[in-house]
Amino acid sequence: MLQRQLLSCSRASMRAISHPSHPTMMASCLKSSISQTSRSISTSRLIYQELKKTDPILKDTPVSTPNIAKTKTTTSSTPKKKGAGFWRWTFRITMFSTIAGWSALTYLVWKETNPADQLPQTELKPTGNKRKKVVIVGSGWGAMSFLQKLDTTQYNVVIVSPRNYFLFTPLLPSVPTGTIDQKSICDPVRLIARQTPGEVQYMEAAVTDIDPHAKKVYIEHKSDRLTIGDAFINDNEPIRAELDYDYLIYSVGAKVNTFGIQGIPEFASYLKEAQDAVAVRQKLFNSVEAARLLPEGSDERKRLMTFVVCGGGPTGVELAAEVKDYIVQDLSKFIPNLENEMNVTLIEALPNVLNMFHHKLIEYTQQVFNSQGVHLRTNTMVKKVDARNVYCTEKKADGSTEDHVIPYGTLVWAGGNAQRKVTTEFAAKIPEQTSRRGLLVDEYQKLYGVEDVYALGDCTFTKNPPTAQVASQQGHFLADHFNKLSKLDDLKFLANQEKQPEQVEKLHKKIQRTESTLLPFHYEHQGSLAYIGSERAVADLSFFQWSTVSVGGNLTFLFWRSAYVSMLMGVRNKVLVTTDWIKVAIFGRDCSKDN
Amino acid sequence: MLQRQLLSCSRASMRAISHPSHPTMMASCLKSSISQTSRSISTSRLIYQELKKTDPILKDTPVSTPNIAKTKTTTSSTPKKKGAGFWRWTFRITMFSTIAGWSALTYLVWKETNPADQLPQTELKPTGNKRKKVVIVGSGWGAMSFLQKLDTTQYNVVIVSPRNYFLFTPLLPSVPTGTIDQKSICDPVRLIARQTPGEVQYMEAAVTDIDPHAKKVYIEHKSDRLTIGDAFINDNEPIRAELDYDYLIYSVGAKVNTFGIQGIPEFASYLKEAQDAVAVRQKLFNSVEAARLLPEGSDERKRLMTFVVCGGGPTGVELAAEVKDYIVQDLSKFIPNLENEMNVTLIEALPNVLNMFHHKLIEYTQQVFNSQGVHLRTNTMVKKVDARNVYCTEKKADGSTEDHVIPYGTLVWAGGNAQRKVTTEFAAKIPEQTSRRGLLVDEYQKLYGVEDVYALGDCTFTKNPPTAQVASQQGHFLADHFNKLSKLDDLKFLANQEKQPEQVEKLHKKIQRTESTLLPFHYEHQGSLAYIGSERAVADLSFFQWSTVSVGGNLTFLFWRSAYVSMLMGVRNKVLVTTDWIKVAIFGRDCSKDN
Repeated sequence: MLQRQLLSCSRASMRAISHPSHPTMMASCLKSSISQTSRSISTSRLIYQELKKTDPILKDTPVSTPNIAKTKTTTSSTPKKKGAGFWRWTFRITMFSTIAGWSALTYLVWKETNPADQLPQTELKPTGNKRKKVVIVGSGWGAMSFLQKLDTTQYNVVIVSPRNYFLFTPLLPSVPTGTIDQKSICDPVRLIARQTPGEVQYMEAAVTDIDPHAKKVYIEHKSDRLTIGDAFINDNEPIRAELDYDYLIYSVGAKVNTFGIQGIPEFASYLKEAQDAVAVRQKLFNSVEAARLLPEGSDERKRLMTFVVCGGGPTGVELAAEVKDYIVQDLSKFIPNLENEMNVTLIEALPNVLNMFHHKLIEYTQQVFNSQGVHLRTNTMVKKVDARNVYCTEKKADGSTEDHVIPYGTLVWAGGNAQRKVTTEFAAKIPEQTSRRGLLVDEYQKLYGVEDVYALGDCTFTKNPPTAQVASQQGHFLADHFNKLSKLDDLKFLANQEKQPEQVEKLHKKIQRTESTLLPFHYEHQGSLAYIGSERAVADLSFFQWSTVSVGGNLTFLFWRSAYVSMLMGVRNKVLVTTDWIKVAIFGRDCSKDN
Repeated sequence: MLQRQLLSCSRASMRAISHPSHPTMMASCLKSSISQTSRSISTSRLIYQELKKTDPILKDTPVSTPNIAKTKTTTSSTPKKKGAGFWRWTFRITMFSTIAGWSALTYLVWKETNPADQLPQTELKPTGNKRKKVVIVGSGWGAMSFLQKLDTTQYNVVIVSPRNYFLFTPLLPSVPTGTIDQKSICDPVRLIARQTPGEVQYMEAAVTDIDPHAKKVYIEHKSDRLTIGDAFINDNEPIRAELDYDYLIYSVGAKVNTFGIQGIPEFASYLKEAQDAVAVRQKLFNSVEAARLLPEGSDERKRLMTFVVCGGGPTGVELAAEVKDYIVQDLSKFIPNLENEMNVTLIEALPNVLNMFHHKLIEYTQQVFNSQGVHLRTNTMVKKVDARNVYCTEKKADGSTEDHVIPYGTLVWAGGNAQRKVTTEFAAKIPEQTSRRGLLVDEYQKLYGVEDVYALGDCTFTKNPPTAQVASQQGHFLADHFNKLSKLDDLKFLANQEKQPEQVEKLHKKIQRTESTLLPFHYEHQGSLAYIGSERAVADLSFFQWSTVSVGGNLTFLFWRSAYVSMLMGVRNKVLVTTDWIKVAIFGRDCSKDN
């Protein structure tokens, strides 16, 4: 059934895409199906009334012509038939709602992929007031949440980011194993920008320097893989440009923190960007396939068959869980005995993994890991890494320490955050920016020490944790703040234009009222989620101030999935991720390397 | 409609692909649905006759109970009701066939992803005869077609290939634009090997050397991206192994032929492997995004906005067409004015593109390209390439020549084939191998000058063109040949064991009979297909010896799609490719780079 609807819907949308006339077409086909249903409904109501009237007649007396219609319906509606009627009914209703649902979805998708025209960028607003230029640096959680809520008709918005898509980081650990396709969690900046009411410019470039006094941003085009970009780089010089701004939204995120541990940059993979996921997948396959050329039981083969994750935060835990799932559920089908040979180890310096979670959930996670055969090494600090071994020190309960050497085939470093070079250089220009852990901002996300520069997310250092949740809440807050600022700006502008004193008075009252609505940012923790393997997840949920719930298990897993789908930015990605999960449910995960 | 056809076709072809049990299945479900239909037809005919008979009665005379049955059908067939009845029926039939179809599909998929146990590899066959070891080198069309048809219970099969998946090359030009996801046309070797009745070993390694006299193959593990693999390479030495063989199936394919043109290897991309598609996509995006930092109308911007394809074979034509589609149908939605700025050029040294096609189709293709605004430069020979320009010479109709300099942002070289190093080295060891254009084989694909080595596909030099079609037919032929050889081998073995002369006599007769079935390879050209943009394709189809049809247009496009879906090896890929097409129909193509 489903598939059929899917088809019809996709067909509809094909029309949608092919030519503008589609909405009518869709409408018509919807209408026809509705009329169909209603007709059948009325028929069966008639049948039912007839039944009530004519039942007695049937029993004894012969039937006269005018009753034929009745008798017919009668015979066709003995209790058994009635049951059939019920089924037909359920069926029609399901049918109808499915069609309705799919048409709605199709419409949404169509709307997203065929966005309406945007208000072009202009010097002045309709009020005659200047339309200020907002430069957004970055395309992560902070920047994109800000963009989505900002009234882009009030500002001339330019986005600058070397990464031309928003990456839904919470699902990144599912990518290396192929549970989710990389594409499905990438939302093109241009697509997001195209959904806003006003025109938004996007430039694929990295910020090299900021002059907060001249209000200038210096950018250069840098592709993620320069080796590929080389061919177009002008005399091997990157292409540069500069931008003026009235407001700068600085949201470049952070880089992985290796804590200066020797060997990490050379030998470990990270799991921060989309291409990291590809690299991890390739390392995993390379080492497994290489191992199979070596004699069974040899040390080298054992080493290559070891997958080591450093860092027991959600990323590390989810990756370890996903990889173990992948091996047990899929790879072992095609690579005999892999399940027993392959070893997944998780190293964490602290006494527990998932420290932000309720202790019950931590215990639960450790149980699940044990039952799954994921080796957990807590209280273990990584000292050094070389091409083949992780050297680490375990702190025992009695306070004594023990050194370990863990040979690895694939090593993933899921460490914390460190500030990007551009951020530290920017901060160095501002005396008030005293912290080496990130940019210091006031309660409106405004940078201390400079005018008109705001910062969001992991590049800031606040009392809030460096999570996607915080960044996106900051983004939404700041967008709202900016919408109010623009309104204020217009009011002030009008007040200056205005001659009549009582009008001015009115306007000043309005201004005060608006200013009083400028509230500082307040973070509302909605909870933490993590997948821990074998269709189980853990969740710490806080419902505003009321209460906190800690749950773990298969149901939580379903919740985890639906929560993430609902968090995805575009309709497109929601559908794609869901499709991926269905794909995996049907086909299992793919076992070819170069994806 | 399209998708529906596709599905039905792919469903059909899936049955076709799957195991012997299928035809019956198909037959049965087909039959039932047919009987359904015929029943409904007969019913309505009856209804109609009844109507004719009973109408007068209806008007005046009262009806007696025995007639109720009749009259029932009567009344149930006043025109309106009849309509309803007809709808209900169509509906039921569609329903039924849909459900049947989808359950069949699900079953096939399930069967593919949960393969049955295989007969393990053994020293001897049940007959007591030695089970010979077949080493297959390669994972392309030749190798995989051979594997699919080979009775793997008769041989101990080992596959060696550095690429752990089969790549469905005909659809590769659709990958850079995201029309099709790379994953969807990659079929893991392990998955294919797992579908065969006997156990098949796979080793991800490249052949470094072959000793045809000692019957040994020397292999080493090489990952496609060594930089990533480094970490596991044993003291930076690749992992090596050696294999003995009784029969060697050599099917390593070919590499791209740059004809020694200066600059091609450094600056051009190819379109031969999956990762090439990724590279092309990235170059395309890099140059477009870089261009947007430059002032409009500047030469550098124009250059970066130029996409040049060299080579007017199907690959080159399809790529140019796909890229143009991508720009017109999708990118221009998100990148204002791109449609007018971006320039797609196709360079071909010969007077025409698609030379293997009927001249009508060539003209049609050139028409379509003109109407689409793809710049065609035929009779133009590329002389030299640097980081920013293609230097070429055009041969005029009057025999004169003119030099051109074509600045480019992205350059794709879709040239011919050249032999791989390993192939030329192998050939050099065999005096009889005199051709530098490929390995010379007899009419059984057996290499001249060595025993027990067979070669398939692009690494050979025969009278047949170097196409996927030829390679796969050779593979199927050789598998069949090997199945017969194994039978012969058993018979000879028995004949030697046998004491009774008349039994021996019988066996020798059998042997002769079997030997007489060993027919040479004969290539049967089934036609050529190419996509030429804006939902149009061209097809030259030859139905055996009977006739040849040349068609082009939108219908041909549908045919092109269904043909390719049916050619895909696994059920999985059929479904994935279809899904991709549906996805694109709904969402359009994706515009984020790092896919």
